[in-house]
Amino acid sequence: MTKIKFWKVQACGNDFIMVNNTSGLIEPNMYSALAEKLCNRRFGIGADGIIFITDEPSFDFEMNYFNSDGSGPVMCGNGGRASIFFVVESRILNSREFLFLSSDGPHKGIYGKDGIYVTVKGGDAKKVSFGGKDMYFVDTGAPHVVVIEKGIDWIDIDSFAKPIREQFNSNVNLIEKADNGWKIRTFERGVEGETLSCGTGSVASAIVINSVLRNRFPIRLKAKGGELEVRFDGKYYWLGGDVKKVFIGEINL
Amino acid sequence: MTKIKFWKVQACGNDFIMVNNTSGLIEPNMYSALAEKLCNRRFGIGADGIIFITDEPSFDFEMNYFNSDGSGPVMCGNGGRASIFFVVESRILNSREFLFLSSDGPHKGIYGKDGIYVTVKGGDAKKVSFGGKDMYFVDTGAPHVVVIEKGIDWIDIDSFAKPIREQFNSNVNLIEKADNGWKIRTFERGVEGETLSCGTGSVASAIVINSVLRNRFPIRLKAKGGELEVRFDGKYYWLGGDVKKVFIGEINL
Repeated sequence: MTKIKFWKVQACGNDFIMVNNTSGLIEPNMYSALAEKLCNRRFGIGADGIIFITDEPSFDFEMNYFNSDGSGPVMCGNGGRASIFFVVESRILNSREFLFLSSDGPHKGIYGKDGIYVTVKGGDAKKVSFGGKDMYFVDTGAPHVVVIEKGIDWIDIDSFAKPIREQFNSNVNLIEKADNGWKIRTFERGVEGETLSCGTGSVASAIVINSVLRNRFPIRLKAKGGELEVRFDGKYYWLGGDVKKVFIGEINL
Repeated sequence: MTKIKFWKVQACGNDFIMVNNTSGLIEPNMYSALAEKLCNRRFGIGADGIIFITDEPSFDFEMNYFNSDGSGPVMCGNGGRASIFFVVESRILNSREFLFLSSDGPHKGIYGKDGIYVTVKGGDAKKVSFGGKDMYFVDTGAPHVVVIEKGIDWIDIDSFAKPIREQFNSNVNLIEKADNGWKIRTFERGVEGETLSCGTGSVASAIVINSVLRNRFPIRLKAKGGELEVRFDGKYYWLGGDVKKVFIGEINL
């Protein structure tokens, strides 16, 4: 029986099991099955996803992210931020700036005093129409429709978002101007329901807020699970916000 | 900051955070707030409930069970079985038979080779009728309606159970004869949906199976989360089945 240590961390309401696999103890062909087993919220540790950190030549590390259903490897914005937190806080690497590899290619990451930031792919906002209403389609590694709305706290997001999700085969984000930034709610494809925050949806929304509504970066977005900030440095979109350690544990595989 | 160690265990799909509080480190007036915080599946450890084990004069221990929403203390059949597992496996007590106190009074428990058993309150099966169909109401510490049905794997339990749950303000159990015992599905009040297993519902169903359908004890019930067995020793109803350690951890309060 193999005993592994893990950290559970959460990034704006997305929670992840973090495993230091730089020793190579766990074979990569086990990642998907372990994701499904360990992310189970009753029979396993429970999480949105699991991340195995490994060594990768020419990079500081590789982030191997798998969803709770075993699908992957895929990129996950908040998962990238959780990875930066974990390699610093668990002392795998002694640095504050990183170049890491994920399944969709290289990403940069910063462990800063004001939050943990990673680069996420950007895309153009394309105006689309549904039910006589203008909305915007943006691909930020995942397909997103962004809808500018009022009173989004009170909207029944399931009935609002489902027809849009089906029409565009995309995630659906509702955004609304707030005092100090924007409110955001996301209906996630795959989950087929609302989640507490969505990294790629926040970047897609920030691109709409910038390119359509002419707000300058940085753009702050308040999701149910916490606040995210999107910056643009002229080349890269950066997703930032808080990451917290929830607990540490040991499990027999 | 107080660091506490915990075990996560699951009993037929019900999962619990187990804390040894025989030292009295955690004040009882903190139990409810800690339950709500630590049982949260994203920002905490995540569980159906939390159990603080304490010393209690005249008993082997006291089980202080709280639901994930902070409500309690209440009794929970599978939680009682988890408590017996925990006090033995984590070496709080060196015994195999126990008399423990819960919020509804004394219970007996056995850590046996063939499973972990605890006593659960019994009640009479009262025939009731709903929608022209006979069913049975049994109070086993919690109110249950038991419906004998066919093809229960394929029933949409939400639409089936909700009107019954509202009519009787009770949990609803569907049971069906299977090869080696009975299949059971439970719609739980409070959760307002189906759960993976229900200890008091299993005892209520076994009482119906015995008193109405004339099956002898022990009665085996196969729930989605695992198999439970109900015994009757002439005085007490015993709920038994498997309990497993999932992982151990440490968290800062």
